[in-house]
Amino acid sequence: MSDTKQVKKVVLAYSGGLDTSIILKWLQTTYGCEVVTFTADLGQGEELEPARKKAELLGIKPENIFIEDLREEFVRDYVFPMFRANAHYEGLYLLGTSIARPLIGKRQIEIAEELGADAVCHGATGKGNDQVRFELTYYALKPDVTVIAPWREWDLRSREQLIDFAEKHQIPIAKDKRGDAPFSVDANLLHSSSEGKVLEDPAAEVPDYVFSRTISPEEAPDTPTIITIGFERGDPVSVDGTPMSPATLLKHLNDLGRDNGIGRLDLVENRFVGMKSRGMYETPGGTILALAHRAIESVTLDRGAAHLKDEIMPKYAELIYNGFWFSPEREMLQALIDKSQELVSGTVRLKLYKGGVHVLGRESPNSLYDQDLVTFEEGAVAYDHRDAAGFIKLNALRLRTLAQRRKKLGL
Amino acid sequence: MSDTKQVKKVVLAYSGGLDTSIILKWLQTTYGCEVVTFTADLGQGEELEPARKKAELLGIKPENIFIEDLREEFVRDYVFPMFRANAHYEGLYLLGTSIARPLIGKRQIEIAEELGADAVCHGATGKGNDQVRFELTYYALKPDVTVIAPWREWDLRSREQLIDFAEKHQIPIAKDKRGDAPFSVDANLLHSSSEGKVLEDPAAEVPDYVFSRTISPEEAPDTPTIITIGFERGDPVSVDGTPMSPATLLKHLNDLGRDNGIGRLDLVENRFVGMKSRGMYETPGGTILALAHRAIESVTLDRGAAHLKDEIMPKYAELIYNGFWFSPEREMLQALIDKSQELVSGTVRLKLYKGGVHVLGRESPNSLYDQDLVTFEEGAVAYDHRDAAGFIKLNALRLRTLAQRRKKLGL
Amino acid sequence: MSDTKQVKKVVLAYSGGLDTSIILKWLQTTYGCEVVTFTADLGQGEELEPARKKAELLGIKPENIFIEDLREEFVRDYVFPMFRANAHYEGLYLLGTSIARPLIGKRQIEIAEELGADAVCHGATGKGNDQVRFELTYYALKPDVTVIAPWREWDLRSREQLIDFAEKHQIPIAKDKRGDAPFSVDANLLHSSSEGKVLEDPAAEVPDYVFSRTISPEEAPDTPTIITIGFERGDPVSVDGTPMSPATLLKHLNDLGRDNGIGRLDLVENRFVGMKSRGMYETPGGTILALAHRAIESVTLDRGAAHLKDEIMPKYAELIYNGFWFSPEREMLQALIDKSQELVSGTVRLKLYKGGVHVLGRESPNSLYDQDLVTFEEGAVAYDHRDAAGFIKLNALRLRTLAQRRKKLGL
Amino acid sequence: MSDTKQVKKVVLAYSGGLDTSIILKWLQTTYGCEVVTFTADLGQGEELEPARKKAELLGIKPENIFIEDLREEFVRDYVFPMFRANAHYEGLYLLGTSIARPLIGKRQIEIAEELGADAVCHGATGKGNDQVRFELTYYALKPDVTVIAPWREWDLRSREQLIDFAEKHQIPIAKDKRGDAPFSVDANLLHSSSEGKVLEDPAAEVPDYVFSRTISPEEAPDTPTIITIGFERGDPVSVDGTPMSPATLLKHLNDLGRDNGIGRLDLVENRFVGMKSRGMYETPGGTILALAHRAIESVTLDRGAAHLKDEIMPKYAELIYNGFWFSPEREMLQALIDKSQELVSGTVRLKLYKGGVHVLGRESPNSLYDQDLVTFEEGAVAYDHRDAAGFIKLNALRLRTLAQRRKKLGL
Repeated sequence: MSDTKQVKKVVLAYSGGLDTSIILKWLQTTYGCEVVTFTADLGQGEELEPARKKAELLGIKPENIFIEDLREEFVRDYVFPMFRANAHYEGLYLLGTSIARPLIGKRQIEIAEELGADAVCHGATGKGNDQVRFELTYYALKPDVTVIAPWREWDLRSREQLIDFAEKHQIPIAKDKRGDAPFSVDANLLHSSSEGKVLEDPAAEVPDYVFSRTISPEEAPDTPTIITIGFERGDPVSVDGTPMSPATLLKHLNDLGRDNGIGRLDLVENRFVGMKSRGMYETPGGTILALAHRAIESVTLDRGAAHLKDEIMPKYAELIYNGFWFSPEREMLQALIDKSQELVSGTVRLKLYKGGVHVLGRESPNSLYDQDLVTFEEGAVAYDHRDAAGFIKLNALRLRTLAQRRKKLGL
Repeated sequence: MSDTKQVKKVVLAYSGGLDTSIILKWLQTTYGCEVVTFTADLGQGEELEPARKKAELLGIKPENIFIEDLREEFVRDYVFPMFRANAHYEGLYLLGTSIARPLIGKRQIEIAEELGADAVCHGATGKGNDQVRFELTYYALKPDVTVIAPWREWDLRSREQLIDFAEKHQIPIAKDKRGDAPFSVDANLLHSSSEGKVLEDPAAEVPDYVFSRTISPEEAPDTPTIITIGFERGDPVSVDGTPMSPATLLKHLNDLGRDNGIGRLDLVENRFVGMKSRGMYETPGGTILALAHRAIESVTLDRGAAHLKDEIMPKYAELIYNGFWFSPEREMLQALIDKSQELVSGTVRLKLYKGGVHVLGRESPNSLYDQDLVTFEEGAVAYDHRDAAGFIKLNALRLRTLAQRRKKLGL
Repeated sequence: MSDTKQVKKVVLAYSGGLDTSIILKWLQTTYGCEVVTFTADLGQGEELEPARKKAELLGIKPENIFIEDLREEFVRDYVFPMFRANAHYEGLYLLGTSIARPLIGKRQIEIAEELGADAVCHGATGKGNDQVRFELTYYALKPDVTVIAPWREWDLRSREQLIDFAEKHQIPIAKDKRGDAPFSVDANLLHSSSEGKVLEDPAAEVPDYVFSRTISPEEAPDTPTIITIGFERGDPVSVDGTPMSPATLLKHLNDLGRDNGIGRLDLVENRFVGMKSRGMYETPGGTILALAHRAIESVTLDRGAAHLKDEIMPKYAELIYNGFWFSPEREMLQALIDKSQELVSGTVRLKLYKGGVHVLGRESPNSLYDQDLVTFEEGAVAYDHRDAAGFIKLNALRLRTLAQRRKKLGL
Repeated sequence: MSDTKQVKKVVLAYSGGLDTSIILKWLQTTYGCEVVTFTADLGQGEELEPARKKAELLGIKPENIFIEDLREEFVRDYVFPMFRANAHYEGLYLLGTSIARPLIGKRQIEIAEELGADAVCHGATGKGNDQVRFELTYYALKPDVTVIAPWREWDLRSREQLIDFAEKHQIPIAKDKRGDAPFSVDANLLHSSSEGKVLEDPAAEVPDYVFSRTISPEEAPDTPTIITIGFERGDPVSVDGTPMSPATLLKHLNDLGRDNGIGRLDLVENRFVGMKSRGMYETPGGTILALAHRAIESVTLDRGAAHLKDEIMPKYAELIYNGFWFSPEREMLQALIDKSQELVSGTVRLKLYKGGVHVLGRESPNSLYDQDLVTFEEGAVAYDHRDAAGFIKLNALRLRTLAQRRKKLGL
């Protein structure tokens, strides 16, 4: 346990659910400290007012209950900057959980500073990545904060003990929460992730009831949906010509993705804490957006810029996955990425169909694609076939020298 | 023109089609040299014997006609090593054309050495990547070779002039070859690519008649196809339990992919020679294989190995795209990649459905996924929740130091 | 030759020496165009007024003679940004020639725009890197410019022919310029480079008479010189407490370096155009500065930032070496680098002695070095020994899993 | 404390000094287990037989005392492979301590396996990198081993308490070991490192008495020493024509370096455990070797190979520094590096003078440096000036396209 005596006031990331309600009570009884609850709407699709009621019921003072709609900030300042990088962790994962943690952690710290709280607390388990992401954020923003991680500290070792604790402390328990959940879920406007229990055998197919955000490709309509996404400076700003705020736009793409069975990903990934885990991700809008962003870059981004971005991307994605959003190196990479996006504007036409996203076309006032260059006519920037000969000759020079050495040495 | 007088014998990459037949005749008339034709079956789906007939008709001596089935070598020694790297150029392109050129070039050089030929010749245009890929291969393997690139040398400037030349030299012309093709095609066992003319406006949708290797997702069956691919040391070796040779296996996956509308890619890419171009790629089997390979790696490859592979992949893909297959740096990267694949064995179950490939499960005798570690039970390698606290604390140490500096400096 | 008829006015990078005077005359006689001379002081240590006289003598109109002191701009906007990156090409070369070319090229283009000139011309040979650096700069800033590279165009094939041409056109020839120079030199405020002829055997020691900017370590004083360099935001701003402008400071370090035999580098390097070359570089002040910059970073830069910089440095250096200063990727990398330098301020004490630079100490108000952390006392950010156990355990987890697999498989 | 009851036999890395003798006794009294001592000669310059005597005195059974000369294995299988990579941590540090730990750890594990010991123990402190390096090695080679790290476990908090413990257990104490050492030292055949106490202020000059392996540049002879190092496949094999075994050669270079004041490095570095520390390293032979290796590579290694090596080097060095010698990613990088060294053979002439190492020349039967290419004569592989024009034009194409876009957009 962290140093009990010293904690006076703790800001808890509070969902209003059973587990964080147990944590709330545990904090009060173990640390004897004032508890501040922070409940954020990141688009997880749950109403927040019940969390207020529950916090009040558990004895939290009204001025210590913080409920905030962070959806626009989340998408604008976290999701979109990350999508500018075309970030995929281990080639496939769009980092939907990873990107939400820094924002929650940052707001907890801001509230702690505002209220003079000396501690923060999260409900992530001791085996996952989220504990790392929360705590690196806390420490990066308030180095002297006390971090409480109940799942690593308490001696509640089973579902039964948790339920006992809840009953003993008059915490309301929904019927379906009495037993172990068949899998655990994290959700926000970017994605839902499911993992644990029924998903733990990586050879076994994910059961249908796990999916919550998308219909299956098979159930999706037989007719494709055609959409156009507009981009400005690397970020999407409109769908089918209608300008939308970041969160509205992502929500809209989520709806389109869900209806077309888009964005399911069954993945075995490598956690930062050292083991492999299997998860099912549903990222309907993000999956559409990722491909669309590459498409608008394909006509507006120079090769040198594009290849440099591709080279640093795995490191950038790893940093976010590992919880280093608030680190100098992530910020340096972001500066590099953002520098490249100034003219990444235009529109992308896409077909959504039974789980697939297909680019149909892209158009930009800033296009670097020059039809005159690729056809045989002489364009504004003339391409001369004869230049290719010299280009190849000098690129080949070192290879020829190597070949001559091999010959000379009889290799 | 290259130095006319010095060329005595040239090995021409000969398809048997109109264009390379014109080149054949042009070589004879311009260089007055002996022409050797080399026609390879890389799975492009055309019969080769007509090429022999045509070469004979154009006056090539029987001993100078080389027709070879390179399909197994192509898949085993070029395609599979590349797929071990999860190589995607610019995030999406599976390098189907790029990977075939080094093999064709290598065989041309080997034949040249065998016959004492002093020159080689290819039919790639002066604006594309293929000229580079052919010629870097030639020079890397035979530094003193003379390279003839007719499209950069001759003064045949239009389709009309080409047809005139053909007629003048009694080259048979199929009726549909008299006009300009609406697009140009390259095909081999890995993919078909189409580009030019009707594809040149990147905003315009690819017309249906361009596709040759896949049916559309919309036409694909309403029932998914479930398959299992077996891997040994990073390479696929069986489908649904049936062992197959490399080329047979890829052919089989191509059939499955084609029937399920899989592997179409509409891309604007950056050519090595400096301009952007738009292509339509069809890589049915390769698209399935790429995802399956990542899936078997996900349970058998260590995180450190996997992330290192991801970091060097863009450079590896760029090298192949740019034509540097036979370069020290590609070989060094291959050594690194191959080193990682020793235990990448097992099976992957996949669902193919209307353009999509979905992983259903993966299994391996070499699995690093340890259910004991991710569940709460103590496994063979015990994971202690309390270790996470120290892990996070030390990872956070430098971030806390940074935060304290900011505080001290009032930033 | 470039298209003679179209060139009306050309801006020539003019040193006033024999070679560029021959070029000047050759431009007039070959292209019949108006010639504008541009002579820049980048600290090469030659007077510029003779260049004006000579240009006038060769018939250049006074309003077409541009002579400029670019030393401060050179050091401030080119040398210092590059040193922020700790850039070394191939591990050793401080890029003294490479970094000067973009500035000269940029000013030529600016003058061309101002005067409505349609062409630019440089005196670099056809085998080196400088032609590439000049021309990439020209094209990047004025895509429609005509570039004239006399050494690739004219048919003056020997020193004799050049002298003949000069005599025929009444170009004054200094006596020591009649024969071939034993080596060629490029100099600016950052360095002098020597290459060619007597230096061409990489096994042979560089003759003493090649050195122009440094005394030998053996001749240097027996008593060390101790200096202190002050840095602000990554750039040096003072020496021994005296604030200095960029060019003044570099000049001062050059003097100190020269007198202590510092900064000689005998190198075989790989040119962008494909061959190896051997050069002797003298970079007295830059050698001191490079080590000092690393030293001030060592106490003010976070590990994540420092390692990221180290990882991208080879690419950054290669871009500058290859002439891509004005490219999106160099600018993106610069954004990343500059982002890291905000708090790189403080002082570094150095000992200069007989060819060596030795760091004696570094001090910064922004130091991240915390004595409390590395001693056993509890510091402001407490380090707990026990955290190390968990840190190691989780870092080891994947390695233990690998070891268990080996054991299980009997490997 | 680790689980006391389970430890039956522990293999201790034992130097014979006071601290590890205290650990030995502490293991016996705390764990009640059998102690095996392992003392290795890695060239630290101390006799090993006294360690045997002392171990016997402390009650270790003769068959449990292991004393081994690992100098040749150390240099051949650890130091030389690392030098093939030109590895420098944070630009400057030659990793002298880091590279020794994996070998010691590996031998401890081998002995543990041989004797059926279930635990290993090292004497590294809880704040440094060495604990990580030892323990990652242990776990990577024997995943079920119990690791005992006394400095993190015991409650001996001061020098006084340690001395008390020693006296109570009849451990002989040399007079000069009673007080705190003014700094701590690690030494092996590659280097000596000193850190702590008197070195902790990074602004203060290192006192003279800290140096143990080199004389100062000022004291070094006034006459340079000229030597020639011969290389085979990337490794040094002879000095001045005399073939030498790896350890003999490194020892010889150490002597030459020491006498010429070479290899001192005063560094502030970033530890893996999260803080900065200041150390003084003396690496006399390694400093000579590092430069010589780059020099022989400069004439024998292709540009593509050399640049790839430079790009991955920082990661490779970081892995070794952090203790990941026995990791898949280090082995993958080693495969890449070793692949490049096949023809890195030849000789390098060097001048050693008052702290400096200067390359005078390099020569190789495998040289890629071709004088014919860099002079104007036509060489075996002809370089044509005109090729440069096309080379530049195509390299410039994308930059020109960018410039035209800027113009079009009025930017």
